[in-house]
Amino acid sequence: MPDTRFFDRSGPFSLSQLAEIGKARINEPLPPSLKLESLFYDVAPLEDAIENTVGVLHNSKYLKNLKFSRAGVCILEDKHIESAPQTAAILVTNTPYRSYALIAQAFYPEAFSCSYAANQETHIHPSANIGYNSKLEPGVIIAANVRIGVNTTIAANSVIGQGVVIGDNCQIGANVSISHSLIGNQVTIHAGTRMGQAGFGFFMDEAGHVQVPQLGRVLIEDRVEIGANVTIDRGSAHDTVIGAGTRIDNLVHIAHNVRLGKGCVIVAQVGISGSTNVGDFTAIAGQAGLTGHLKIGKGVRIAAQSGVMRDITEGMTVGGSPAVPVSQWHRQTIALQKLISKKERA
Amino acid sequence: MPDTRFFDRSGPFSLSQLAEIGKARINEPLPPSLKLESLFYDVAPLEDAIENTVGVLHNSKYLKNLKFSRAGVCILEDKHIESAPQTAAILVTNTPYRSYALIAQAFYPEAFSCSYAANQETHIHPSANIGYNSKLEPGVIIAANVRIGVNTTIAANSVIGQGVVIGDNCQIGANVSISHSLIGNQVTIHAGTRMGQAGFGFFMDEAGHVQVPQLGRVLIEDRVEIGANVTIDRGSAHDTVIGAGTRIDNLVHIAHNVRLGKGCVIVAQVGISGSTNVGDFTAIAGQAGLTGHLKIGKGVRIAAQSGVMRDITEGMTVGGSPAVPVSQWHRQTIALQKLISKKERA
Amino acid sequence: MPDTRFFDRSGPFSLSQLAEIGKARINEPLPPSLKLESLFYDVAPLEDAIENTVGVLHNSKYLKNLKFSRAGVCILEDKHIESAPQTAAILVTNTPYRSYALIAQAFYPEAFSCSYAANQETHIHPSANIGYNSKLEPGVIIAANVRIGVNTTIAANSVIGQGVVIGDNCQIGANVSISHSLIGNQVTIHAGTRMGQAGFGFFMDEAGHVQVPQLGRVLIEDRVEIGANVTIDRGSAHDTVIGAGTRIDNLVHIAHNVRLGKGCVIVAQVGISGSTNVGDFTAIAGQAGLTGHLKIGKGVRIAAQSGVMRDITEGMTVGGSPAVPVSQWHRQTIALQKLISKKERA
Repeated sequence: MPDTRFFDRSGPFSLSQLAEIGKARINEPLPPSLKLESLFYDVAPLEDAIENTVGVLHNSKYLKNLKFSRAGVCILEDKHIESAPQTAAILVTNTPYRSYALIAQAFYPEAFSCSYAANQETHIHPSANIGYNSKLEPGVIIAANVRIGVNTTIAANSVIGQGVVIGDNCQIGANVSISHSLIGNQVTIHAGTRMGQAGFGFFMDEAGHVQVPQLGRVLIEDRVEIGANVTIDRGSAHDTVIGAGTRIDNLVHIAHNVRLGKGCVIVAQVGISGSTNVGDFTAIAGQAGLTGHLKIGKGVRIAAQSGVMRDITEGMTVGGSPAVPVSQWHRQTIALQKLISKKERA
Repeated sequence: MPDTRFFDRSGPFSLSQLAEIGKARINEPLPPSLKLESLFYDVAPLEDAIENTVGVLHNSKYLKNLKFSRAGVCILEDKHIESAPQTAAILVTNTPYRSYALIAQAFYPEAFSCSYAANQETHIHPSANIGYNSKLEPGVIIAANVRIGVNTTIAANSVIGQGVVIGDNCQIGANVSISHSLIGNQVTIHAGTRMGQAGFGFFMDEAGHVQVPQLGRVLIEDRVEIGANVTIDRGSAHDTVIGAGTRIDNLVHIAHNVRLGKGCVIVAQVGISGSTNVGDFTAIAGQAGLTGHLKIGKGVRIAAQSGVMRDITEGMTVGGSPAVPVSQWHRQTIALQKLISKKERA
Repeated sequence: MPDTRFFDRSGPFSLSQLAEIGKARINEPLPPSLKLESLFYDVAPLEDAIENTVGVLHNSKYLKNLKFSRAGVCILEDKHIESAPQTAAILVTNTPYRSYALIAQAFYPEAFSCSYAANQETHIHPSANIGYNSKLEPGVIIAANVRIGVNTTIAANSVIGQGVVIGDNCQIGANVSISHSLIGNQVTIHAGTRMGQAGFGFFMDEAGHVQVPQLGRVLIEDRVEIGANVTIDRGSAHDTVIGAGTRIDNLVHIAHNVRLGKGCVIVAQVGISGSTNVGDFTAIAGQAGLTGHLKIGKGVRIAAQSGVMRDITEGMTVGGSPAVPVSQWHRQTIALQKLISKKERA
C-alpha cells in the first residue's frame, strides 16, 4: 500500500464508478459476493492486493501473480479472463495499464505537494506576476518580469530567471533552474533540471575557442513532463522546442535548437545533439545518442544505446551504433555470433 | 600534501600504530634510522612523499615510482618488498590499498564539514524532529514530519520533503533533493542528487500519455554511498531499494522499483531500467545500461558500455551491446578484426 | 530575433565596423543600395533575416537558405560568393562561424545577468573575501575563507565551500555546488554543476567497501567553460585539472585525478575515468567513455559513443567500442553489413 506519510488517498469508489473512470467493461456475471455498488479503497500490485483493492495485469509476464491474487477487482484483457481468480470482479479493456492509470489517478489525485514551515520569506522581484492559487515554496527565487499562471507550484530552492513565463497547473520540482524559457500549461518538471542555459556553441580554434552568443529560447508546450537532472539548452538563434504531451526521463540532454514533436517518449540518459528535429510520437530508448542536424520522422522507434548518425524516415525502427534498421541490426548480431561459432568448430 | 584549507589532519602516528590501523605486518629488519616508535605525519603519493609520510603501491603500473620514493613508510604486497627503497619502513599486506584507506582515514577522519556564517535561518517545519548533534547548513529546507537521526549533516540549500526519514551519522551534500525516502545510518549522498521523485511511469497513448501515480518509496540501507547528480526514482507500487554498503558513482540513473543488493558497485553514468533486480556484490562498469524487469545474479560483473537485455546468472562476467559472456564478446571483437584484415589481403 | 525579455542588444554597427569586428574582408563592389557606412542592427538566421541584419553561412548544408535570404550582410567563404543574394553585402572569410561569433558578441555583450529583488540577504561567512564589482545573487551561500575576484557573478542558490578560490570575470550559474577547488579567470560554469566532491575511491571488499579519503583538489585554468549538471570530482591525492580554454558540455563526468589539456572539447554525456590524462586540443564526441589511467595524446579525436580502453597517440582519430582507428572502425561496419548481405543471397 502507498505510504500515507507521502500520499493522501481519495475514494472509496464503487465497482461501477471504477468501470467508468477506467473506461473498462465489467465482466458478467459478477462473483456472488460482489455487486455493482461494492466499494473499493485502494490500488495495489496483484500479489499484494487484498479484498477491497484494485489490481492490474499489464504484462503477461506476471500471469502467475494473477491466479492467486486476492484483489477484489482485476483489470485485464479479454484473453486473460479465464486466468483470473473466481473471487474477483473483472474489468475488461484492450489497454489494462491505461485503465489502471486512470483509476490510480482517481485514488491519488495529487502526489507532488508538501507542507513546509509557514514563516519563510521568498525572493520575488516586485515586477513578477504570480497567478491565483500558485504556490512558491521556501527558498524559491523569482527574477524580474517573470509571469506564472494559476494553480502552479514551484518547489523549494528553485530559481526562475528573468522574463520566464510558466503557465497554469504546472509542477516545478525542487532545486530546478529555469531561464530564457516559455512554458505552457500542465507541465511537470522534476527536481534538479536545468533549462534555458546557453548551449555548447562556439567556434573551435586552437588560438582560443570563440563563444557564439546563444540568443534563442526554450519553448515547452502543454502537458510536457520532464524528469530529474535533465538539461535543455536554449536555442542559439531559433528556439529549442518540446512538443505538447512529450515525456522526457531523467538525465536526458537536449542540445540547442532541437525540436521534439508532440507525444514523444525520450528515455533516461538519451542525448540529442544540436538542431536535430524529431517527429511526433517518436520513442527513443535509454542511452541512445543522436548527432546534430538530423531529421527523424514521425512514429520512429530507436532502440536503447543506438548511435543515430543519419536521417530516419517515418515509422522506422532502428538499432545499433551506427544505427541501422532493426532487422538488419539483429541479423548483424546473429552473423557475428555464427562467425565465432564457425571458428571454434574449425 | 592535502590542501589544509580543505582538510584537517590528525596524527602523528607511530609505525606500530600504523601497522595496527592498516592491519598490516611490519617487515623486519627496519632500516637503521627507524624504530617502532618513529612518528609519521601524513599520507602522500609515492613520488611526492617525504621522510615522515606514508605511501602505497596499489597498482604495479606504478612500480617505477616506488624505487625512488622518499616515503618513510611504504605499504605493499610481499612480492614487491625487494623493489622498495632501502630507507623506508615496509608495511606488508595482501591488500595494500585497503591498508592505505584505513590509515588515510585515521589521518583525515572527516572530509565533509564546512564553516558557514553563524546567523542564518533555516526553514524547518515545526513537526520535524532533528536528532542530537545533527547539523543543518544554511538554506536547508525541511518539510513536515521529517525525522533525522544523530550526528547527521545536511549541507547547504538541500531540500528534504515531507515524511522523509534519515538515520544517524549520515552526510547529505549541498543542493540535494530528497522526497518519499527512508534512509538508514552512515549513508553519504553527494551534491545535486535527486531521490524519491516520481518515475517514468505512464500509459503510452497517441491521444495523450496517461500518468500512472508513483506510489512507492526509496529505501536506502546502511552504509550506502551515492555520488553527485544521481537520480533515484521512487517505486511505482513496490519500493526502489538500495542494499547495505552499495556504492553508486556520479550521474547514475536508477529507475522505479529497481532493487540493488548489498555491496554492489555501480560506476558513473550507468542506467538501470524499471523493476530490474541486481544481486549482492555485483559490479556494473561505466555507461552500461540494463533494460527493465531483469534478474541479475549475485557477484555478476558487467563491462563498461554493455547493453544488458537478458537475465544474467550468478557469478558471470558479460560485455558488449547486446551483452554476451565476456569471452564471447572478446572473440567477436577479434573475429571482426580478422574479417577486415582478410578483405585487405584479398 | 533574440527575445528582448532575455537579451540586451548593443549596436548598431556600420558595415566597415562589422568587417573589423569579424576580421573579414568586404567583397567589392557593394550592391548599389549599400555603403561602408550603412548601419546594421542585429544578427539573425539567414532564412529569418531582414534588410538591416547580419546572417552567416556556416555549413554548406544550408546553402539553400542563402540564395533567398533577405539579410543585409552575409558572412561566408570565398567559394560561396556566387550563391549569395544580389542585395546583400558580403563579408568573406575562411572561418565564417568565427566571424559570426565575434559580431554576435558585439551585438550581445552579456547574456548571463539577471535582476532579482533588492532586499535579499545572502549567507556570506565573515572571513570570505569578495572582490570589487562581483555580485552574489540571492540564496548564494559562501563558506569560510572563500576568495572571489573582481567582476564575478555567482547566480542564485549556489553553494561555495570552504577555502574555494574563484578568479576575476567568472560566471557561476544557479544551483551550482563547488568545494575543494581553485578556479582561474574568465571561467563560466552553468547551472547545477558539482565540482570538488569526493570521487569514487574505495577499496572493494565483500566485508564492506572501505572509503579512501579523497585529498586532492579541482584546478580550473583560465577561460574554461563547463556546461550544466556536470560532475567533476576532486583528486584523490593529486589534483583533477582542467586546462585553459577547454570546453565541457552538459552532463559530462570527470573522475578524480583526470587531467585535461588546453583547448579540449568534451561533448555532452562523455565520461572520463580516474587518472586518465588527455592532451591539448583533443576532442571527445558525445557519450564516449574512457577507462582509467590512460594517456590520450594531443589533438586526438574520439567519435561519439566510443569506448576507449587503451592509450591513443597524438593526432589519431578513433571510433567504436572497443575503440580502434577510425578507418578500421568504418571497415568493420561495412564488413559486418556485407556479411549479412551475403547470407541473404545464399
